[in-house]
Amino acid sequence: MNIYDVSKRAGVSIATVSRVLNGNEKVSEKTRQKVLAVMEETGYTPNAFARGLGLDTMKTIGILCADSSDSFLASAVYYIERELRGYNYDVLLCCTGYELETKQKYLELLLSKRVDAVILVGSNFVETTKEKNSYIADAAKRVPVIILNGFFEAENVYCALCDDAETMCRVTKSYLKAEKTDILYIGRSFSYSGIRKKEGFMRAYQEMGIKLRENQMIMLNGTIQDTRDFLIERAKQGIRESVILTSDDELAIGAIKYAGALGIKIPDELEIVGYNNSKLGICCEPELSTVDNKLEFSCMNAVTVLMKVLEGSQVPAKTMVSADVIVRNTTKICF
Amino acid sequence: MNIYDVSKRAGVSIATVSRVLNGNEKVSEKTRQKVLAVMEETGYTPNAFARGLGLDTMKTIGILCADSSDSFLASAVYYIERELRGYNYDVLLCCTGYELETKQKYLELLLSKRVDAVILVGSNFVETTKEKNSYIADAAKRVPVIILNGFFEAENVYCALCDDAETMCRVTKSYLKAEKTDILYIGRSFSYSGIRKKEGFMRAYQEMGIKLRENQMIMLNGTIQDTRDFLIERAKQGIRESVILTSDDELAIGAIKYAGALGIKIPDELEIVGYNNSKLGICCEPELSTVDNKLEFSCMNAVTVLMKVLEGSQVPAKTMVSADVIVRNTTKICF
Repeated sequence: MNIYDVSKRAGVSIATVSRVLNGNEKVSEKTRQKVLAVMEETGYTPNAFARGLGLDTMKTIGILCADSSDSFLASAVYYIERELRGYNYDVLLCCTGYELETKQKYLELLLSKRVDAVILVGSNFVETTKEKNSYIADAAKRVPVIILNGFFEAENVYCALCDDAETMCRVTKSYLKAEKTDILYIGRSFSYSGIRKKEGFMRAYQEMGIKLRENQMIMLNGTIQDTRDFLIERAKQGIRESVILTSDDELAIGAIKYAGALGIKIPDELEIVGYNNSKLGICCEPELSTVDNKLEFSCMNAVTVLMKVLEGSQVPAKTMVSADVIVRNTTKICF
Repeated sequence: MNIYDVSKRAGVSIATVSRVLNGNEKVSEKTRQKVLAVMEETGYTPNAFARGLGLDTMKTIGILCADSSDSFLASAVYYIERELRGYNYDVLLCCTGYELETKQKYLELLLSKRVDAVILVGSNFVETTKEKNSYIADAAKRVPVIILNGFFEAENVYCALCDDAETMCRVTKSYLKAEKTDILYIGRSFSYSGIRKKEGFMRAYQEMGIKLRENQMIMLNGTIQDTRDFLIERAKQGIRESVILTSDDELAIGAIKYAGALGIKIPDELEIVGYNNSKLGICCEPELSTVDNKLEFSCMNAVTVLMKVLEGSQVPAKTMVSADVIVRNTTKICF
């Protein structure tokens, strides 16, 4: 018996059940009675909403993070923990790796710990098929699920993200408008945000009515060194662009190293844009122009949304922030 | 009533109480009876050791980390979480910041959550005076406390660390033996490991019988940019060395940027050594030679020690690993 079953039996939405549990006055007396009756019948006292009934909850939020040694994800965990601490919630951290099976297993584990909600940090929790994402929908039948930087539509799932498609489209268009059309896009993953960035890149060409060649988009999954070596090899085969856009700063730094190795001048002969505004971008030479996807703000957003959900307030399923380009020394264009 | 009180009343060590609780056979029957009698008298059933009595524990370890968005600390949290998960322990994460007051407050908070033990990640939890460190000793009266990369002597406190003094002494001596005696040491903090690194630097001069000037050691607390600017200003005043050793990679990258700004050739005119072997060191140009302080291994060590302590086994209060230098392009010497 879970909140989903209660809502089904009572013939109301999960949000309504949640509002009843939290004593929200926007629920009619009739609906309230119906929901309470179902709960009494079934003996349902959900932990996640118990606070609203004055019951004792663990005041603990489970955080799933693929790899907290990744600097982007680590910062996200840091910001989220800080925000939750401000609301007197504890954080149960679980690093899952990138395998679907482990992600499922650890999500199940967290739920068994009676957490009040789960936050999935990073878009790599959202898989490409609905079937593979059923583990998220299932979890959301038990507690609210917040996804940071990813999007998946299901009841009781809330997403806080950056508009990566729009941002990548805008950056790409800046170059197309300046008649720099030989742009290489390097992506890393087929995660939700990975796909969205690539979409944005393609959309820019489409909207500008410029033909995009297949080999202008590549996916690389290795280290900085691997990226460098790949690009050197590619250049030796005569394929060179004058702009490289990437889906993260590490890929961009690989591109900087490639240019360094072949004596290609940045930004005169090659412009490079990173993504994530990580600390890596101020270590390289020249320093990296990169997209600041407002991670801290998104994290604050995610926690605010979660607190509203736990209070039983109505909350949009998706909140989106827009990104800026931090201009340093690998670009000369105006964005 | 805590384990410390039980040990005091029974006239035995905390380790002995722990061994009794865990049914360890190395305890004499007489001692066992004495400890159990005290526990019965006082009604003491400590959570941390309850598992040994077949009681239900939370199987949760509290991790305090000053700032998990720091890449070194983030990696440590990641490795520790992974190891603990392997033993079916959960991790309650708490990011404290660097203020003593907040560290104390959050440590108290974690203890109130009935964690089985506490791991302090990073040497910045160990303050310079015994008085300020009493919060650690107090916590250790309730549960085992593990300190990663820091050292503090108290009962029930266990430290897993890298021999930073020895390492820094060795690196410094390599230069002194090569008759490069104009070395600048840049440190960041007065944390335990910060102090040990500086000690190692000074010891090398002492043991080689070479005079060390006061202005060969500076403490900087800013960004990469700040470090760069500071060194440029210093060089303008005529102070320039041919070797810079640092206590972390960020400081070293600041030094690389300084050399770049003034056209100083690395490694011919200036050699630079970082510390921590972070990803930043492969982003910069030239790539950074840096000390690998075996973080992953230290984390595994810390968790192994903790598991032994929770089992009631006898464990050394301090386990130490030695470090290597990863040679890249900012040095030309043989270490």
